[in-house]
Amino acid sequence: MNNRPIIGITMGDAAGVGPEIIDKALSLKEIYQICRPLVIGDAKVLDDAQKVAKTTLKIRSIAHVTEAVFLYGVADVLDAHNIRLEALKMGQPQAMAGKASYEYVAKAVELALKGEIHGIATAPINKEALNMAGYHYPGHTEILAELTGTREYAMMFVAGPLKVILATCHVSLRKACDMIKKESLIASIKLAYQTMQRFGIEEPKIAVAGLNPHAGEGGLFGHEDIEEIKPAVELARRLGFNVWGPLPADTLFYRAKEGEFDIVVAMYHDQGCIPVKLLGFDTAVNITVGLPIIRTSVDHGTAYRRASLRLGTGNPGSLIEAIKLASKLAA
Amino acid sequence: MNNRPIIGITMGDAAGVGPEIIDKALSLKEIYQICRPLVIGDAKVLDDAQKVAKTTLKIRSIAHVTEAVFLYGVADVLDAHNIRLEALKMGQPQAMAGKASYEYVAKAVELALKGEIHGIATAPINKEALNMAGYHYPGHTEILAELTGTREYAMMFVAGPLKVILATCHVSLRKACDMIKKESLIASIKLAYQTMQRFGIEEPKIAVAGLNPHAGEGGLFGHEDIEEIKPAVELARRLGFNVWGPLPADTLFYRAKEGEFDIVVAMYHDQGCIPVKLLGFDTAVNITVGLPIIRTSVDHGTAYRRASLRLGTGNPGSLIEAIKLASKLAA
Repeated sequence: MNNRPIIGITMGDAAGVGPEIIDKALSLKEIYQICRPLVIGDAKVLDDAQKVAKTTLKIRSIAHVTEAVFLYGVADVLDAHNIRLEALKMGQPQAMAGKASYEYVAKAVELALKGEIHGIATAPINKEALNMAGYHYPGHTEILAELTGTREYAMMFVAGPLKVILATCHVSLRKACDMIKKESLIASIKLAYQTMQRFGIEEPKIAVAGLNPHAGEGGLFGHEDIEEIKPAVELARRLGFNVWGPLPADTLFYRAKEGEFDIVVAMYHDQGCIPVKLLGFDTAVNITVGLPIIRTSVDHGTAYRRASLRLGTGNPGSLIEAIKLASKLAA
Repeated sequence: MNNRPIIGITMGDAAGVGPEIIDKALSLKEIYQICRPLVIGDAKVLDDAQKVAKTTLKIRSIAHVTEAVFLYGVADVLDAHNIRLEALKMGQPQAMAGKASYEYVAKAVELALKGEIHGIATAPINKEALNMAGYHYPGHTEILAELTGTREYAMMFVAGPLKVILATCHVSLRKACDMIKKESLIASIKLAYQTMQRFGIEEPKIAVAGLNPHAGEGGLFGHEDIEEIKPAVELARRLGFNVWGPLPADTLFYRAKEGEFDIVVAMYHDQGCIPVKLLGFDTAVNITVGLPIIRTSVDHGTAYRRASLRLGTGNPGSLIEAIKLASKLAA
């Protein structure tokens, strides 16, 4: 069973639900059957979170990947010792936890690039806490792109039968309209294709959503569909991709859910994320594609309010799916 | 049972699935139990469509509402005699059918304004056919607004547990961004409130979606959420409305589906229509709110390709729901 991939699970923001849902996920035997999980975080925090998660893992603080035992019942934690438990305020953004959450990700990327781990699944971080610690990023994705020196990357989501890749992401809707250009769409289509091949789909059927209502209705409702999206799809077809578009976005996600397409290229954040959250609220997984490493993530935030109540209501569903998917992609 | 409302059902484009799905819907006894249905269309076309619909209605051509018998098994058709069956090309836009489809709507509006019918449920029209006949409208909604002299109106959708009203509709995404203004949003919130009261909800919980990703993330991703939407919601609250927003659109529709809100004010067409189609592909109903008359509609188009095959695969689900809802609102 030593060919199971080693998946680094970053703890995320210590004041959020990350530690709790990691403890819950690692209490499932199936996780150890598909991968060798290694938490990258703070062992004290994970142990303390067991009171909330109501789990009975043996939390093992280690300093090197080679020390991990990967045994069910044991959580190996590559221990950053960067949280003072007595100073941690649950459910609040704080510089200590923001800084620590960045360090887990940086460590995970370093190990993945060196091949010491085979994939990363990340628990949620908090942007405000990151900012308080002096790290100014719109989100995880941009940190990972920078740490790996990646220029062409995209956010992708898997929600039940639906797979969606975003052509633009953390920008205003107006800026997204400006950014919809033939060249970048070709890059998105290529990323969609490569990712689907990683999923084991030889000739993926790729759908490209329209930007405007009714995909622009022949130019009546905006020109981007005609001037940028259509030429990009036509060029991609000439390059041999199995791609259609621009298709009216309102019906497209239903069609994709029903199996007509393997993946949808969405033009902007909410266009892709509305159907993803609707179909996979507690189980959707976020993947950063285009990176030289495998990285999946939960599709939710730190849930500070939930975390502050310490009632054990954190839902590990999305993290479990993220670990499974990272394992599958790394296998 | 004479207090059942008279619902005018306009036949829509004769070359589309309208006639077929009307025949199917009127073959259901429950329709006659909740309303007195009156088709406004062309009797020959509806009779011919019975071959496709595989129904056995007695199609009764009448010239005045007062001649209708409203008996189950009989379809009363206020007959416009405006389609030459031998010239009709199924599944193709053509001026004859475009002109006819406009005339059904105009007649229905006239009757509704006079109180001779109590509500309208419309089968799909085709914009291209309308244009060929010299009628230049983005859709049904705009025709109805013009015919009734209505300035403040909106498209609303009911899809299972989800109710959505659109703040902007048939315009480019850039134009929608320009149109998101405090004043018009107040009007949308009021329309949402009035409509929910018609649905029998005394104090509706109204959610207003953000325009930008994460509802603008505090101004990082666009300013409309802070400068227009937030002040509109605050003013509406001071006016006594039970309203929240701007709320991140990606999670909002899930929350509304789960019952947290009675209705969502969506900022643009696809934001509202993506979740509607996903949750109610064959059963969603479109309502025009703000009109002096009750008007519901199927939430799909003419399905020309399906209609041209004449295989009887037209799905009456959305039309049935539209007739039911018009009956409920008119009761």
